[in-house]
Amino acid sequence: MKEQSAQDRWEQHTQRPLLALAVLFAVAYAVPIVDTSAGHSLTAACTVAEWVVWGFFAVDYLMRLSLSRDRRGFVRQHWMDLCAVVVPLIQPLRLLRLVSTLLLVGRRARMASQIRVTTYVGGAVVGLLMFGSLAVLSVERDSPNGNIRTLGDAVWWSFTTMTTVGYGDHAPTTGLGRMIAVGLMLSGIALLGVVTANIAAWFIERFEKDDVEEREQTEAIRALTEEVRALRAEVAALRKTSVGG
Amino acid sequence: MKEQSAQDRWEQHTQRPLLALAVLFAVAYAVPIVDTSAGHSLTAACTVAEWVVWGFFAVDYLMRLSLSRDRRGFVRQHWMDLCAVVVPLIQPLRLLRLVSTLLLVGRRARMASQIRVTTYVGGAVVGLLMFGSLAVLSVERDSPNGNIRTLGDAVWWSFTTMTTVGYGDHAPTTGLGRMIAVGLMLSGIALLGVVTANIAAWFIERFEKDDVEEREQTEAIRALTEEVRALRAEVAALRKTSVGG
Amino acid sequence: MKEQSAQDRWEQHTQRPLLALAVLFAVAYAVPIVDTSAGHSLTAACTVAEWVVWGFFAVDYLMRLSLSRDRRGFVRQHWMDLCAVVVPLIQPLRLLRLVSTLLLVGRRARMASQIRVTTYVGGAVVGLLMFGSLAVLSVERDSPNGNIRTLGDAVWWSFTTMTTVGYGDHAPTTGLGRMIAVGLMLSGIALLGVVTANIAAWFIERFEKDDVEEREQTEAIRALTEEVRALRAEVAALRKTSVGG
Amino acid sequence: MKEQSAQDRWEQHTQRPLLALAVLFAVAYAVPIVDTSAGHSLTAACTVAEWVVWGFFAVDYLMRLSLSRDRRGFVRQHWMDLCAVVVPLIQPLRLLRLVSTLLLVGRRARMASQIRVTTYVGGAVVGLLMFGSLAVLSVERDSPNGNIRTLGDAVWWSFTTMTTVGYGDHAPTTGLGRMIAVGLMLSGIALLGVVTANIAAWFIERFEKDDVEEREQTEAIRALTEEVRALRAEVAALRKTSVGG
Repeated sequence: MKEQSAQDRWEQHTQRPLLALAVLFAVAYAVPIVDTSAGHSLTAACTVAEWVVWGFFAVDYLMRLSLSRDRRGFVRQHWMDLCAVVVPLIQPLRLLRLVSTLLLVGRRARMASQIRVTTYVGGAVVGLLMFGSLAVLSVERDSPNGNIRTLGDAVWWSFTTMTTVGYGDHAPTTGLGRMIAVGLMLSGIALLGVVTANIAAWFIERFEKDDVEEREQTEAIRALTEEVRALRAEVAALRKTSVGG
Repeated sequence: MKEQSAQDRWEQHTQRPLLALAVLFAVAYAVPIVDTSAGHSLTAACTVAEWVVWGFFAVDYLMRLSLSRDRRGFVRQHWMDLCAVVVPLIQPLRLLRLVSTLLLVGRRARMASQIRVTTYVGGAVVGLLMFGSLAVLSVERDSPNGNIRTLGDAVWWSFTTMTTVGYGDHAPTTGLGRMIAVGLMLSGIALLGVVTANIAAWFIERFEKDDVEEREQTEAIRALTEEVRALRAEVAALRKTSVGG
Repeated sequence: MKEQSAQDRWEQHTQRPLLALAVLFAVAYAVPIVDTSAGHSLTAACTVAEWVVWGFFAVDYLMRLSLSRDRRGFVRQHWMDLCAVVVPLIQPLRLLRLVSTLLLVGRRARMASQIRVTTYVGGAVVGLLMFGSLAVLSVERDSPNGNIRTLGDAVWWSFTTMTTVGYGDHAPTTGLGRMIAVGLMLSGIALLGVVTANIAAWFIERFEKDDVEEREQTEAIRALTEEVRALRAEVAALRKTSVGG
Repeated sequence: MKEQSAQDRWEQHTQRPLLALAVLFAVAYAVPIVDTSAGHSLTAACTVAEWVVWGFFAVDYLMRLSLSRDRRGFVRQHWMDLCAVVVPLIQPLRLLRLVSTLLLVGRRARMASQIRVTTYVGGAVVGLLMFGSLAVLSVERDSPNGNIRTLGDAVWWSFTTMTTVGYGDHAPTTGLGRMIAVGLMLSGIALLGVVTANIAAWFIERFEKDDVEEREQTEAIRALTEEVRALRAEVAALRKTSVGG
């Protein structure tokens, strides 16, 4: 129906390659954390892979910017993408690169009109769980009082946090670990709100079919239509009489 | 009104026997866990009973498949049932048999149109609490650092988990126990969402009775009907004049 | 408008005295738990006061039963009240008397049409907090491993439970204490659902004012009314012509 | 459109200076708690600054009262503001001054029609987190069994409380600290309800576009309008015949 702009075409064609790059990033981020005996060369390779994925997303941002009709409007509307592209250059910390790339992947996925809200929310939950666990593990493992020392503990802690159960058998103790935890909590509760709202909407939709007032209205309109039809017949009869007379 | 298919008739007639079998399974699953001094023969009898119940549900699946008009569509629509039937054959672990049978019972119950959503949700909560407690107890009792060692502790832990209170006085420590816990958490929160949504829908339904816009519309339709009635009288009077003239 | 039945009149006149009796019960229940140095005579007086309050509510039930037009329907509709009246006679435990009287007060309050839902929910939350704290305190104080030993701890524990925060610094350890806790949890979550739903309804009501479809309908009905009015004028003009001709 | 009253003009002009004063209060409240080595003169200066801010808000209340057309109605409607102005004079405790000033700032902000609900809720969450952390820290730091001793711990505890996660690694132990905690919990859950309701409303709004019944009604009204139009044409034709005849 609608004519596709060059920007739309670009976004559609690059969707799958960028998704593959996001998976590559996930692997490159996970390997040095999970495999603690990983050699220097493997860790270096993973860092390079992370930068390459970031680079592709940066190029994607620049391409979309150059293809957009209103460039100022694009920058203003996608200022978070710009931050996510620029920040890793200023502060080449691993955690910031993680947050930046997650943000770029997430915002790019939301742009793809084929992806439905439920898929997006589900993907976000799985991504947050996975990267949250890995990030907390890498931070808390080196803390002297830390109690999150294995990947199993980290994933278990992520689940108890995002569901707001919070047993307290494992909890971050360092400042950085707690900041990651706050991020996980807030997004977990927000996503929970979406799920609850979704179910609520589905239920309400079912209940509203039985809305009494609504049905009374439809009834009233139908009765009125009958009335008008009778009136029309009356007028038609009148016309015959008049003509006949 | 609607003519019943052979599949509908089968589902209606087998509903009660299958419910009785589900109760039998619950007893057969609970006995060896609760009664730790149970002899070898009793445990073996319970295992046989579990396999028999699974067998009946497998037969039920095959019967519904053979009675359905569109067999490919049936398999595609009920792929989870197929998995639940096949999995215990490949991996004869007790926990997998539990999950499979629960899935078969749950999906079968949802099919029965007489069961209302509230009954289904209530039954699911009770079932999850009971089997979750038993499964965690059987797994955690043998763990050296485990702190869930009696049925009372297991049920108490299930409640604090499903309500997301999570005191942390009892928490699973083994990988398998934690996987069961994650299952309980996710289903607990989802069911909580349904309950909240249900109450929300009930409240909104009450509030909407007072919806101003809606009532104004009904008012407007009634005024319009009056108008048309007056018009009809006018036309009738006109007809008399016309005929009289 | 509506003629009041004898039952309605009874319910309206007895509302205030029964509320005063409920407050008396609260005091009689609290005193022996809070004041551990209370003498034998004071404890005995409180037990008598509790039975007297229960007696008045039992009389109220019987009066409403005898005044109702359809006695079988009354018993069937109010079977919980009947249980609450009968149970303390069979099992004269203090905790059962508490639950029974709370149930009778709560169901009686819901009957009073002057009380709005928000007041009812608010009162229920305060009542549950107060009696839940007292009941848990009286049970857990005597437990060797118990950690709820002062009224302050009990109230604090009630708050952390009903809000599902659940720090775990205090938690019931006895079977009876845990059953009270489960009751508190479930009612706390349900009431939380009501509050959330209430806020949701209030928000939705605000949003729905902007409902586009609804306004279009009202517009359409108004346009239609204009049309009919024009038609009526036309017919009136026709009548004049017809008479004049 | 609407003519502005003197009160409206006053509220609009004083909004920014009062916001600046609220920030000054935040700094004056935070400094002596965060900087434990603060000298006597700095602490005294902060206390003076707090009283000055309170004084300006008291003057603002009196100005609005004198400018309002219905003074009795103003006092009745804003009785909480009156309490917040009077209470610090009776009981010059620091905590009461904090609660009073927060209340005055919050109620004044709600009055400003430019501030949208989301901004207000967001600001309330940040304010509650900040002041709740500071208040709990100042109370719990001096408790012998306290476990909230640094600002980091206090902020972390606030987050785990307001999200209802509640690990229990940090929890208030004093009566005053627990009262602050209850305030944080209740407001946290209420704000969470608003957020959930907001998302729910947004979702429902999307879903209702597809409401079948509603569209059927609009259809029915349009069909009816067609019917009336046809009738009008018929009458017009009749008139011509009648005149012609």
